[in-house]
Amino acid sequence: MAKIVTMGEIMLRLSTPGYQKFIQADNFEVNYGGGEANVCVSLARFGHKTYFVSKVPDNPIGECAVAALRKHDVNCEYIIKGGERLGIYYLEPGASMRPSNVVYDRAHSSMSEAAIEEFDFDTIFKGADWFHLSGITPAISDKAADLALAALQKARELGVKVSMDFNYRAKLWSYEKAGKVMTELLPYVDVCIGSKEDAIYILGMTPSQKPDGALADDVTKDMFQQMIERFGFQCMAGTMRESYSASDNGWSACIYDGKEFYHTRKYDMRIVDRVGGGDSFAAGLICGLVEGKGIKEALDFATAASALKHTIPGDVNLVTRSEVERLMNGDASGKVQR
Amino acid sequence: MAKIVTMGEIMLRLSTPGYQKFIQADNFEVNYGGGEANVCVSLARFGHKTYFVSKVPDNPIGECAVAALRKHDVNCEYIIKGGERLGIYYLEPGASMRPSNVVYDRAHSSMSEAAIEEFDFDTIFKGADWFHLSGITPAISDKAADLALAALQKARELGVKVSMDFNYRAKLWSYEKAGKVMTELLPYVDVCIGSKEDAIYILGMTPSQKPDGALADDVTKDMFQQMIERFGFQCMAGTMRESYSASDNGWSACIYDGKEFYHTRKYDMRIVDRVGGGDSFAAGLICGLVEGKGIKEALDFATAASALKHTIPGDVNLVTRSEVERLMNGDASGKVQR
Amino acid sequence: MAKIVTMGEIMLRLSTPGYQKFIQADNFEVNYGGGEANVCVSLARFGHKTYFVSKVPDNPIGECAVAALRKHDVNCEYIIKGGERLGIYYLEPGASMRPSNVVYDRAHSSMSEAAIEEFDFDTIFKGADWFHLSGITPAISDKAADLALAALQKARELGVKVSMDFNYRAKLWSYEKAGKVMTELLPYVDVCIGSKEDAIYILGMTPSQKPDGALADDVTKDMFQQMIERFGFQCMAGTMRESYSASDNGWSACIYDGKEFYHTRKYDMRIVDRVGGGDSFAAGLICGLVEGKGIKEALDFATAASALKHTIPGDVNLVTRSEVERLMNGDASGKVQR
Amino acid sequence: MAKIVTMGEIMLRLSTPGYQKFIQADNFEVNYGGGEANVCVSLARFGHKTYFVSKVPDNPIGECAVAALRKHDVNCEYIIKGGERLGIYYLEPGASMRPSNVVYDRAHSSMSEAAIEEFDFDTIFKGADWFHLSGITPAISDKAADLALAALQKARELGVKVSMDFNYRAKLWSYEKAGKVMTELLPYVDVCIGSKEDAIYILGMTPSQKPDGALADDVTKDMFQQMIERFGFQCMAGTMRESYSASDNGWSACIYDGKEFYHTRKYDMRIVDRVGGGDSFAAGLICGLVEGKGIKEALDFATAASALKHTIPGDVNLVTRSEVERLMNGDASGKVQR
Amino acid sequence: MAKIVTMGEIMLRLSTPGYQKFIQADNFEVNYGGGEANVCVSLARFGHKTYFVSKVPDNPIGECAVAALRKHDVNCEYIIKGGERLGIYYLEPGASMRPSNVVYDRAHSSMSEAAIEEFDFDTIFKGADWFHLSGITPAISDKAADLALAALQKARELGVKVSMDFNYRAKLWSYEKAGKVMTELLPYVDVCIGSKEDAIYILGMTPSQKPDGALADDVTKDMFQQMIERFGFQCMAGTMRESYSASDNGWSACIYDGKEFYHTRKYDMRIVDRVGGGDSFAAGLICGLVEGKGIKEALDFATAASALKHTIPGDVNLVTRSEVERLMNGDASGKVQR
Amino acid sequence: MAKIVTMGEIMLRLSTPGYQKFIQADNFEVNYGGGEANVCVSLARFGHKTYFVSKVPDNPIGECAVAALRKHDVNCEYIIKGGERLGIYYLEPGASMRPSNVVYDRAHSSMSEAAIEEFDFDTIFKGADWFHLSGITPAISDKAADLALAALQKARELGVKVSMDFNYRAKLWSYEKAGKVMTELLPYVDVCIGSKEDAIYILGMTPSQKPDGALADDVTKDMFQQMIERFGFQCMAGTMRESYSASDNGWSACIYDGKEFYHTRKYDMRIVDRVGGGDSFAAGLICGLVEGKGIKEALDFATAASALKHTIPGDVNLVTRSEVERLMNGDASGKVQR
Repeated sequence: MAKIVTMGEIMLRLSTPGYQKFIQADNFEVNYGGGEANVCVSLARFGHKTYFVSKVPDNPIGECAVAALRKHDVNCEYIIKGGERLGIYYLEPGASMRPSNVVYDRAHSSMSEAAIEEFDFDTIFKGADWFHLSGITPAISDKAADLALAALQKARELGVKVSMDFNYRAKLWSYEKAGKVMTELLPYVDVCIGSKEDAIYILGMTPSQKPDGALADDVTKDMFQQMIERFGFQCMAGTMRESYSASDNGWSACIYDGKEFYHTRKYDMRIVDRVGGGDSFAAGLICGLVEGKGIKEALDFATAASALKHTIPGDVNLVTRSEVERLMNGDASGKVQR
Repeated sequence: MAKIVTMGEIMLRLSTPGYQKFIQADNFEVNYGGGEANVCVSLARFGHKTYFVSKVPDNPIGECAVAALRKHDVNCEYIIKGGERLGIYYLEPGASMRPSNVVYDRAHSSMSEAAIEEFDFDTIFKGADWFHLSGITPAISDKAADLALAALQKARELGVKVSMDFNYRAKLWSYEKAGKVMTELLPYVDVCIGSKEDAIYILGMTPSQKPDGALADDVTKDMFQQMIERFGFQCMAGTMRESYSASDNGWSACIYDGKEFYHTRKYDMRIVDRVGGGDSFAAGLICGLVEGKGIKEALDFATAASALKHTIPGDVNLVTRSEVERLMNGDASGKVQR
Repeated sequence: MAKIVTMGEIMLRLSTPGYQKFIQADNFEVNYGGGEANVCVSLARFGHKTYFVSKVPDNPIGECAVAALRKHDVNCEYIIKGGERLGIYYLEPGASMRPSNVVYDRAHSSMSEAAIEEFDFDTIFKGADWFHLSGITPAISDKAADLALAALQKARELGVKVSMDFNYRAKLWSYEKAGKVMTELLPYVDVCIGSKEDAIYILGMTPSQKPDGALADDVTKDMFQQMIERFGFQCMAGTMRESYSASDNGWSACIYDGKEFYHTRKYDMRIVDRVGGGDSFAAGLICGLVEGKGIKEALDFATAASALKHTIPGDVNLVTRSEVERLMNGDASGKVQR
Repeated sequence: MAKIVTMGEIMLRLSTPGYQKFIQADNFEVNYGGGEANVCVSLARFGHKTYFVSKVPDNPIGECAVAALRKHDVNCEYIIKGGERLGIYYLEPGASMRPSNVVYDRAHSSMSEAAIEEFDFDTIFKGADWFHLSGITPAISDKAADLALAALQKARELGVKVSMDFNYRAKLWSYEKAGKVMTELLPYVDVCIGSKEDAIYILGMTPSQKPDGALADDVTKDMFQQMIERFGFQCMAGTMRESYSASDNGWSACIYDGKEFYHTRKYDMRIVDRVGGGDSFAAGLICGLVEGKGIKEALDFATAASALKHTIPGDVNLVTRSEVERLMNGDASGKVQR
Repeated sequence: MAKIVTMGEIMLRLSTPGYQKFIQADNFEVNYGGGEANVCVSLARFGHKTYFVSKVPDNPIGECAVAALRKHDVNCEYIIKGGERLGIYYLEPGASMRPSNVVYDRAHSSMSEAAIEEFDFDTIFKGADWFHLSGITPAISDKAADLALAALQKARELGVKVSMDFNYRAKLWSYEKAGKVMTELLPYVDVCIGSKEDAIYILGMTPSQKPDGALADDVTKDMFQQMIERFGFQCMAGTMRESYSASDNGWSACIYDGKEFYHTRKYDMRIVDRVGGGDSFAAGLICGLVEGKGIKEALDFATAASALKHTIPGDVNLVTRSEVERLMNGDASGKVQR
Repeated sequence: MAKIVTMGEIMLRLSTPGYQKFIQADNFEVNYGGGEANVCVSLARFGHKTYFVSKVPDNPIGECAVAALRKHDVNCEYIIKGGERLGIYYLEPGASMRPSNVVYDRAHSSMSEAAIEEFDFDTIFKGADWFHLSGITPAISDKAADLALAALQKARELGVKVSMDFNYRAKLWSYEKAGKVMTELLPYVDVCIGSKEDAIYILGMTPSQKPDGALADDVTKDMFQQMIERFGFQCMAGTMRESYSASDNGWSACIYDGKEFYHTRKYDMRIVDRVGGGDSFAAGLICGLVEGKGIKEALDFATAASALKHTIPGDVNLVTRSEVERLMNGDASGKVQR
């Protein structure tokens, strides 16, 4: 059981029930989540000792967000209270060829205006085995980007292994801004989660081969290689989503550690809720790596875990380790367990 | 922004939630809709100035029906109040190989017993660019058929362009009755929406070629040609639904203007609610034509719009113009917009 | 209209709505069902005079279970009241590659502790045409196994035709225990529902051919032949489920009467609720056979009926005879009936 | 256990949840009820063998209405199928000083157009102990009034005891029409349920004393006396509702048999649903009288039963006999039973 | 039918169902409302031609807010689109001695940052009979206070009658700030709605008599007199709420026009939803005054209307004119209308 | 912040929504609670470090029960997993004169069959300030009674202060059995919660005065005095519930420490959910005493806290300390906080 720390924003998600458009909804389903918070809950469900670092408003809505994590056994003692508001995102779930629609209302959130001094990272990282961050946190504000950098530096200083997920959000920042900030942060990262597109569009890297002629996996391996060389990652991994429609996706992942490149089997998923799919992958990968599994086994676990996430409503992956292992071992028949 | 008038019945739809059979339902979902009303709302959503002409009972249920239209910016000043009741239809949504089941309880509705004199069509059509009607209105009663004829004649007289959708309903009238009435109405129509089957079974037309050897599109073009010649339509269009099951359909459309025959791409749809699919097509087509687009572009817009309708609960198509255009331009991936 | 008796346990089913995991649920959907009870309701819906034999606690929850049957016109006069509790099963419906999960809480139920003397089988079977039982009843307790045997013997004695469905549940008993008990019960059975796996794993029979080289149907026929020879069945039937995932299954069935082996067409089902699928098959088969149809027609009816069951929420098959016949006659298009 | 027959219309009730106005409702709660049907269910719950005589449409909505009765053990074999539609009433439940609002949509219902010849009253009343009817049935149509008369005459002929409840509804008929019809029906009645206002306004009777000076009970006794003399009732009973508001009512009842006048204690009720309050009183009274209790005891039972009805959602009184007896014996504390 | 303009913020209200605390809620009920918007809807329901002036974000949530008004026939052409977000308030409805709890999240809303130049008040007030504003609008930001002043000045200039409701909110501004701003705004007001406490605590006025010895009405009249003298109101009115608990309130109102002081009867209300009670009073008062009724009749109408509001879920008063008149005329019995 | 330990059973509560009778419910509301668990959550909400000691089955339902506690910050590390099942109770909430009805299905629960050796009480009580138990735990089984005794002895040995609540449940044990067991347990108790009736009927004590002539408080004081003398309590407290009906109760409490007898003010409560009212009182009392408040202040806090509980759905008291203090300080007006 490892001590794993994640830091980020937790938001209130308000979604319409039954595929309704916003204009039809008389009530919203309430969930609390966010990139790193989702990772944290999933790792807690897998049995690790997880800590979430954040700032929420000192009001009942902030309290609800914390309780939602605590319910799943996330340690919340490093969540501070204050600031103006809890960020919100409105979600209109898509179906078939109609995409899900997200409306952000997250500006001025407590976490986006939190200051470095408010967190005692020496205490937070004491005895920690792993620290995870996503590219959403530095995207929400300059202050949050500074906070992310400070945390990464302290984690490196204290010997905590660090993973970071690009998680690029076009509604939060531009490629240019993302490139500038991520370039500062990535040197402190051990395990990076991203895609060849992140390397090309955000970091401005150039594939060695012309992409059109090359196989997708070759380009991916090339870009992962370049990233590893530039930032010194131990390994880099990423998911491949094939969006046939909002209802059906293909899902696989690949990993590269400078030596071996591995691409998992592909899952064809009937989607219940795809939000948090990437986060559940990150959680699965961290779970495998922190437990000392090889990169292939860790990746297989992560891919099965995140495929299952797509069958669960809400942001967070509530599957158990044994459910993941059953799928990982090949039983995708969905037969009733009775 | 064109002034578009539609006339017809608006009904209360009572449907069971969660694929329940009627006998399981402890509550019914409430929607208000009907062929032409659905067209009207969709055109209002696309930004046109729409007017709905109808009669509803002067009680709270009639008021609910009107409010449901007004919410989406349909002008309701030509809806008159009186008569006995609001028509109802009960809907048991199907799934997989189980078809949706509709139970009509629409006899004696206010609109079915409305008289021509109750409507001031000179005022209604003043400045109007378009008038739309469906074959459901003349089917509900002889009085309504008379009303439909009067409205069509006045529209023609005042130079308002007219579209009409066959929309044949076997539970409302026979092929014979439909043929007799439609034959009186169609001479006043500019844009007709229907199928080769409507021409053959309702109007008693004969394909030039034996259907079995011919390609479906050839037969369609043939019948559309015959219809255009007989009634003087400017163009005729129709949708092609392939019902693989209640859950999955293929969807495309074709149009013919006497010169050019065009058949769109086919969408494979995972269905949320298929009621109103044809109405949303009519709305899309009118939208394109009233804005002066060519028949191909208008048809592509109509087909994309109506494919999206199938992903939305309720009778009416609540998608926005930009959602339609994104799909029309080829993005059917259903990727989250964030 | 035949008099058909079934006997078994009726349970409270508590299931999570909207694909929620148990840990997300703030309310449970309430259904009452159970192997033989499901058969009974379905046969009542098809127009037969059905009687359910069971024991439920003398409290409001037991009363709810009885009312749920009575609503669908099952005669409940042979249900006795007493004992400790109504058995429960918790259901977490699966989706895509995530299987449905069942948690049983049925020990100590009134039916599992009912004594033979509490039932007056002479009255119960008087004038009865058919008696149906499933392998779940003898599995729930030794007392229930004794009760099952007594009922079967009395039915045979009184010339009532008997059907029995293996319905093996690994969470209730082992292959060994099942084999021992079923071997005692099967000699009283006329129509047996099961699979080649039941023959091999529960009854310890051996396929004549090596299964790997043989076609599945050949092995099935072989095992059915052996079963018929050993126990004197009039015929044996079984369903073939292909679990592509928790959301999509293939579904067909076969039957053998010692002379003719028949395998139906296969239905590809988009699943709403698969619990009770086997029970609805048994009901359909009994319906056909009790009405004197041939085994092929009875099987086609049973297969169509049970395919439709998968589109209905809850344990019981609420389709009507005409819905089954429409599907049986080939219309699987799911087109709206209006 | 007496055989008790009631005859009347069963309707679909569509009500808004959570004190919503009609214009707010996105779903309606579904209940099936009606004056005599409510009486029937309540008597079935008290353990009597009840039969409901009616006509419902031969469609799934008619089937739902029947199933709703059967669930509570009402024998439905005398309900015939056919006609146009099931009557509907929309209910907007009131609160505090806002009254509940009912919108009727019951014209053209199957029952309102049923003919005398469709029912075999000789079979229906064979062995019956009691027949109950309310003034709603003759109010819905002239045909239904004829049917009511025919049933009452046959009941009298066959020696079945008859009760009738005035149940005057101003939205269905005028005082004049009601007076004319009721005067024809009442001679066949043994137990009449009504009020002094019914006598004065519907039957045009005149109080012996000036009402303003007299005590309410004295006027009631006077009018009951006049009614008994005129129509030959065995006894007459009525409820007294004090409507403090839509949320709080006082409730008591009185009875007179020509000799003794008795007025029960008054219950102060916090109301959950007051529809069906009068019907539950009729059921309670019939229950007591058919079991041979004295009029005081029967009235106390009826009053307690109907007070409890007001705490239950829906039209029908689902309390058990023991719940009524506990209240009747004085325990109105509402203490948890655990 | 008067043209009535109101201006203010419209917010998304998120409330917990069934008396849940925030921490229990898995879904929030969605309503759109706000002080002046509530007034506007109520006046539209009474049949007036109402216009709402506001700014909402140009996203689907802003669109929902507008549609919610349009549904009730509010003219929304003066609502502009832009800015950052729609303000939110979270509501935890109270019961008995537990107060309702409101959490505001309205900072940075589009309306709070709207500029005077964005509105064309000459067009807006053209032909208008009345303009209503509440003290919430100037409280939300300095910019909104400037906007309020500009609107009031233009209304006065164009001869539009003006009403203003103090509506003091302690969570939005202090007494001092409110006093300073209101003092600037009130000279442009014709009809003022407030309380003696507003005069004393916000405007710093001093009662002529010592309050402890005086009757409440005398103090109120005194303060209203002082207000009228200082600001030149035509009349001043206010409501008196007696909060026995969150579930039960007394409700009355008084008015003074410099000559006559009138205090209405008191309603004892069982509360369904008390938010918007004051707004519904303002709407009722404006309704009466704009129609030329005397102050007593207008006040009686306003008081009955607002008492009824407390029985309806949501912010807005959806009662009809006839419902108000029935209560106003003394029928508070809550008897079912059928 | 004190370390407080409670031990007991946690159950699944299944309740009908909207005042439905069991027979009407299509879904049950899900809550997890139980006497001591409710106390534990409430104390956690007040800011104390609470630990719950129990045994739940090692399945998803057991996991849900634990998560429900953890959500509110109860430390669950001493909850062990195993045994047969989670106990259930079905709740039909009453209204007005209809009492709530509870159906227990808690036999064979994991906690009722837990053995003393399964718990390490030395660790559990290490550093603990307080241990709380209720009379429900020893009532559920002899094994649980042994466990209770062992825990109490160890708590006394380790100097942990002990409170115990009689909480007599007639459906669980008789007065005789309760008297025998409680007599063994009470000598280890410091703070006892109970009533004069507990002393008289369970412990067989005799009031010094004839109850009929004496004031209720005098009898209570007398019995508390006798209890204190016999068992050596530090103080004894109890609540006084006046059940006007299931909807309205009066609520007060009294305490006696051998010297001073104090009876609080009475709260008149409109009830949302009265289950857990006594537990919330126990929590409030422990909260006050463990923080060193005087008995009067502690009792006032406990009474206000438990009055507020009655306004919250579910078993557990989710109010905050500040909400309690506001009520305790006299503000019972229920005015909106905004």
